Amino acid sequence: MARTASLSGFPEWLPQERLVELHVLDTLRRTFELHGFASIETRAVETVGQLLRKGEIDKEVYGLSRLQDDDDSASKDDAHALALHFDLTVPFARYVVENAGYLAFPFRRYQIQKVWRGERPQEGRAREFTQADIDVVGDGELPFRYDVELALVIAEALSALPIPPFRLRINNRKLAEGFYRGIGLADTAGVLRSIDKLEKVGPEKVAELLQEELGATPEQAKSALELASIRTEDTSFVGQVRALGVQDELLEEGLSELEQVIAAASAAAPGKVVADLSIARGLDYYTGTVYETVLVGHEQLGSICSGGRYDALATKGSRKFPGVGLSIGVTRLVSRILSQELATASRSVPTAVLVTLVDDDSWIAAQKVAAQLRGRGIAVEVAAKADKFGKQIKYADRRGIPFVWFSHADGTHEVKDIRSGEQVGADPASWMPPAADLVPQVVAASA
Amino acid sequence: MARTASLSGFPEWLPQERLVELHVLDTLRRTFELHGFASIETRAVETVGQLLRKGEIDKEVYGLSRLQDDDDSASKDDAHALALHFDLTVPFARYVVENAGYLAFPFRRYQIQKVWRGERPQEGRAREFTQADIDVVGDGELPFRYDVELALVIAEALSALPIPPFRLRINNRKLAEGFYRGIGLADTAGVLRSIDKLEKVGPEKVAELLQEELGATPEQAKSALELASIRTEDTSFVGQVRALGVQDELLEEGLSELEQVIAAASAAAPGKVVADLSIARGLDYYTGTVYETVLVGHEQLGSICSGGRYDALATKGSRKFPGVGLSIGVTRLVSRILSQELATASRSVPTAVLVTLVDDDSWIAAQKVAAQLRGRGIAVEVAAKADKFGKQIKYADRRGIPFVWFSHADGTHEVKDIRSGEQVGADPASWMPPAADLVPQVVAASA
Repeated sequence: MARTASLSGFPEWLPQERLVELHVLDTLRRTFELHGFASIETRAVETVGQLLRKGEIDKEVYGLSRLQDDDDSASKDDAHALALHFDLTVPFARYVVENAGYLAFPFRRYQIQKVWRGERPQEGRAREFTQADIDVVGDGELPFRYDVELALVIAEALSALPIPPFRLRINNRKLAEGFYRGIGLADTAGVLRSIDKLEKVGPEKVAELLQEELGATPEQAKSALELASIRTEDTSFVGQVRALGVQDELLEEGLSELEQVIAAASAAAPGKVVADLSIARGLDYYTGTVYETVLVGHEQLGSICSGGRYDALATKGSRKFPGVGLSIGVTRLVSRILSQELATASRSVPTAVLVTLVDDDSWIAAQKVAAQLRGRGIAVEVAAKADKFGKQIKYADRRGIPFVWFSHADGTHEVKDIRSGEQVGADPASWMPPAADLVPQVVAASA
Repeated sequence: MARTASLSGFPEWLPQERLVELHVLDTLRRTFELHGFASIETRAVETVGQLLRKGEIDKEVYGLSRLQDDDDSASKDDAHALALHFDLTVPFARYVVENAGYLAFPFRRYQIQKVWRGERPQEGRAREFTQADIDVVGDGELPFRYDVELALVIAEALSALPIPPFRLRINNRKLAEGFYRGIGLADTAGVLRSIDKLEKVGPEKVAELLQEELGATPEQAKSALELASIRTEDTSFVGQVRALGVQDELLEEGLSELEQVIAAASAAAPGKVVADLSIARGLDYYTGTVYETVLVGHEQLGSICSGGRYDALATKGSRKFPGVGLSIGVTRLVSRILSQELATASRSVPTAVLVTLVDDDSWIAAQKVAAQLRGRGIAVEVAAKADKFGKQIKYADRRGIPFVWFSHADGTHEVKDIRSGEQVGADPASWMPPAADLVPQVVAASA
């Protein structure tokens, strides 16, 4: 498990590791579908103009060019040139605008795809990685209740994964911006950017930044940091904020929204949700609720699931499509699960049974036995050659196949569990392996 | 369904169309796993040096460069530069060599991923498309029987899809090369390249090519074309080839191999398999069996599934990894299914039930009903607002959700099928929708 990727930042899994990833992906898909989210995929490429519309991440984008294209000089500066998407939100916004006439709003979708960023690779940060996003997007307006619902869906999805306990940290941009405004700091975006650095550089440094870069007084800096220090697992943050004595309409709206999210989410997933008033999230397009998620004991891995409410990510003329969504960092999660062996697959092949050959001519008959077993959902391989039985059994053992099947000349059959050595008579029309052996199980390590 | 992609060659599906694609992908995955193939994915990028190692397709490769990388001039000619993979075979060969120490051979894998080619887009040919590959690779040697097995697996996989009848056309390179050698044509690769053009340019033109470019006599050209004209649904091709009176050891080996494949495959999938001695397949690395597949009535779409035996695609020093594999063109298939409405999804959302709200405060209680239903695998949405019931029902109708749920103040519940209007009492702890409504069904159009 300690292999390094042959290309730094582009992880690849062995078959047994891939089963863990598939388990995570299947679990997420199932949870999302049970909550009525429809699957879509968008193309891997966007025009450079589309990607850079929201600014900020241009450094990390991979541009594309045809290797044999003679005219290879202009494309990089051309807004129509193609580049790989760096998240699934920007492509989704384009998809909604392009297909608005074909979608029923509020449109609920999940999207599980690879994205690419040319960042310096490190643990938890790859250049190619899989994200699993859910969003609900309205046409014109979107009830606030969806902010509450998405917290519940994500808590349920993460709870179903073989990972350590997580904390979903939730804040609200209106609350923070209203508070800053209320204490007289007008550049609320600037304050948010400084507060976003809290975990990295500490409160003293942030206080300095607020005073030097944003002209805050020591008292204003102190108040902003007091707000950011509030963390509660229930709605008691409301009283704590009120105790700071700041009056602002937007602050009140944000307090009320965050209270609703925390009340419902902490009731549905007790101990897993925190109102954390230091959460800022870097991206400019969030306008209300913001979410991020850490694994307890793995905080330095960074957020494994982030998102928020955006009132105008997508627009089509005067038509607005407000939305709320979250994105799970699947590769970041799976890398951690694998590197720390938080969960493992019970075998590396789907195969439950190897049907052996008594002689080379019995291959067709063996295929018929295999087809009967497959008809009941049992994954089966047939030996390719009539080697000695010992060699055929060794083949199964080496591949981690738990059962070998023998068809005898008298028309009877036997199946052997090669782990216990137990061999019993079996009927290809009815035999089933124990449920735990039917398909590979992904099992969380006991904590 | 007549939308055009906003970027030519990069198709995107609507949610209802995506359900058809998901059905195809899920069906293939299930069939492959039932036959013991393990899932792997490789990174989307390879080094240019790796991709061009097998020559030929350099024109179609998309190179990558960081948009903000200052040193942007050298990369295109640099073998270490990165480019998007154009198939899954070359990356798989690299993966096998890199991970040989961790894999149990013969290694059986399936791989379902997007690939990219900068070709001119047309129906059946996209610039971004999904392939589904299966391969078996041995360490040193790989029994011929796998050539037979893969034909059976692919016939089973394709038979499970909502597509028109298909024909799996099979030939053998040894047979063809041995025959050409036997009639005195030494440049067997050259003859194969000419024969490969048969369907496009016709036999007269191919006869000309053989004579002008390869120095064949009219008799040699005639013999080569006679061989290519043989097509049988059973093993009678053997007699037809023998009747041409050519003696060659390699020809005999090829005849025997193709006979085994056709005998087994036509028994397992009668009418779906043809020995077609005109099949050449362009790629140089095939060394024995070659496969391609057409949809009956859609022959101009090209092959939807191709592959073959390769004795040395991957090597590691003196160690060889021979293999046999096939690749299904999923996007080509799905595009055709959608454009001709060969199959459709019964609804566009996973959701089977909308739980309505009698007032805004009942949302938490409605979530509890929803959780009970989801516990039995029923996909449920909860209304976000307590609009009038008519409006809530209209929401379900517009989204294609078949059932709406009402929870009454007296603790009883009712569920209404909004297609029939039938409304009945229901218990959230036990109610199930009819099986056909539980999840969206993908149904083939009656031919």
